[in-house]
Amino acid sequence: MALPATVKLVEVGPRDGLQNEKQSVDTATKIELIARLGAAGLRAIEAASFVSPKWVPQMADAAAVLTGIARRSGVSYPVLTPNLQGFEAALAAGAEEVAVFAAASESFSQRNINCSIAESLARFDPVMHGARMAGVKVRGYVSCVLGCPYEGDIAPAAVAAVAAKLYEMGCYEVTLGDTIGTGTPLKTQRMLGAVLEHLPVERVAGHYHDTYGMAVANIYASLQMGVATFDSSVAGLGGCPYAKGASGNVATEDVVYLLQGMDIDCGVDLDQLLACSAWISGVLGRRPASRVGQARCSSAPA
Amino acid sequence: MALPATVKLVEVGPRDGLQNEKQSVDTATKIELIARLGAAGLRAIEAASFVSPKWVPQMADAAAVLTGIARRSGVSYPVLTPNLQGFEAALAAGAEEVAVFAAASESFSQRNINCSIAESLARFDPVMHGARMAGVKVRGYVSCVLGCPYEGDIAPAAVAAVAAKLYEMGCYEVTLGDTIGTGTPLKTQRMLGAVLEHLPVERVAGHYHDTYGMAVANIYASLQMGVATFDSSVAGLGGCPYAKGASGNVATEDVVYLLQGMDIDCGVDLDQLLACSAWISGVLGRRPASRVGQARCSSAPA
Repeated sequence: MALPATVKLVEVGPRDGLQNEKQSVDTATKIELIARLGAAGLRAIEAASFVSPKWVPQMADAAAVLTGIARRSGVSYPVLTPNLQGFEAALAAGAEEVAVFAAASESFSQRNINCSIAESLARFDPVMHGARMAGVKVRGYVSCVLGCPYEGDIAPAAVAAVAAKLYEMGCYEVTLGDTIGTGTPLKTQRMLGAVLEHLPVERVAGHYHDTYGMAVANIYASLQMGVATFDSSVAGLGGCPYAKGASGNVATEDVVYLLQGMDIDCGVDLDQLLACSAWISGVLGRRPASRVGQARCSSAPA
Repeated sequence: MALPATVKLVEVGPRDGLQNEKQSVDTATKIELIARLGAAGLRAIEAASFVSPKWVPQMADAAAVLTGIARRSGVSYPVLTPNLQGFEAALAAGAEEVAVFAAASESFSQRNINCSIAESLARFDPVMHGARMAGVKVRGYVSCVLGCPYEGDIAPAAVAAVAAKLYEMGCYEVTLGDTIGTGTPLKTQRMLGAVLEHLPVERVAGHYHDTYGMAVANIYASLQMGVATFDSSVAGLGGCPYAKGASGNVATEDVVYLLQGMDIDCGVDLDQLLACSAWISGVLGRRPASRVGQARCSSAPA
């Protein structure tokens, strides 16, 4: 199968990334980060999460971020909305796209959001309804698609069942998350094979973590299955909550490098992206968690 | 094409790795490193380089290392021998396998060893002859197979020509080095396609650098072409001489993780390898340059 000629990247650094950074970042910096990512050519930038600030204090300024950004034409700014309250707040702040999430692992669902997978899906019904009424697009996340910190391996059929349900409920795209980064290319292809029995490939996205250094290979394996949408995080923002100091979300720079090296168009200017990566890493007082970022930063003249 | 069922790893940490580390390591530590790698299940361990200590002071104790190691049955300990003098010293120290090297880039050959590719190959003639006489196996390295720091892209046909010449001269295996780590999976497959017109696939090895995070993906792409031998360096020892602080040789741990995750047997015990990686990284006073090493070290109880 020929690889896709173009790929859409969904930049998750400002939300999934910053939410998992120890050091909090002020609203102006978040807005600046989103602006720089848009200027670098990213066309989908997850901007914030409308969750209770009791749970996720880093996202307490979600409305201020979403109303503060200068929206670019042709760029979407999805926000996470775990419940109707969050959805309504997002809508009030002008959200045009939201995201909901469910796990492919029962144990993870219970421990992470204190309910079963089926219950979590039922909870999204009002959000889906509200989104339909408001003409807002909904993206669906599935976590633990290639492994669970509590259960280990996850059956491809279990992933496919949750992905199919989110798609039936109205998600225009379902993104498959290797939450703990233990997937390898063959496991990725087996999992995708099961999902693609239920969803058209253009509705499927890959969300891979680089904790064990497999993310780029898993993206390549997914491209070979026709998947053409991937989530990534500038500078690898976010790290891994299950292994302190280890990598989490695959770095956007590394994905762009892979795609450009295979003549796949993703519309991103790598130099501008690297400048953005170096800048936000500087704000956080660390090096980019990206191989390309490290290679380019370190070889640059002092 | 089905992926290979088994893979041979050639561990290059004690030579290629330590040679490129700033901090030098004493002879006893090198011998201990080689012993630990053998105990972890590695069956080919590049032990030293018989070069002039004026050029590479880190390898001045090559003979002491090679005579000092307790050789395991079934394990090979190749050493680098750039000329006849080095070869004779290696032979005197009991070498049973040696390695020679040439570049796929004329500019790199000129700047790195001050002669053309053809001249460098001619210089190996006496080594090849001596090895044949002594019943010593010779491995051939080709550098810059996916890019050159001076020339940029390298034509697959240029790589194939050098690989074919080394094979004709008597190398039992030719290892293809992405010296600056700029290769991506499709480039890797194109390069391999050209080489495999001249060499049987079981005589070809991949030697990839992770400078831009592509090494694991390039190994997967090579497995898809039937390549079943890869070079790697425990803890990613060696770094990248072209980008200070960046990754060089792909870390053995990351390759073993990839292979085990795809049910490909490489005979290595990952836990023992990780312990070895943590130990040598401690000796050098740094973290392992390996995603798996970082994930496992950081998630281990304090």
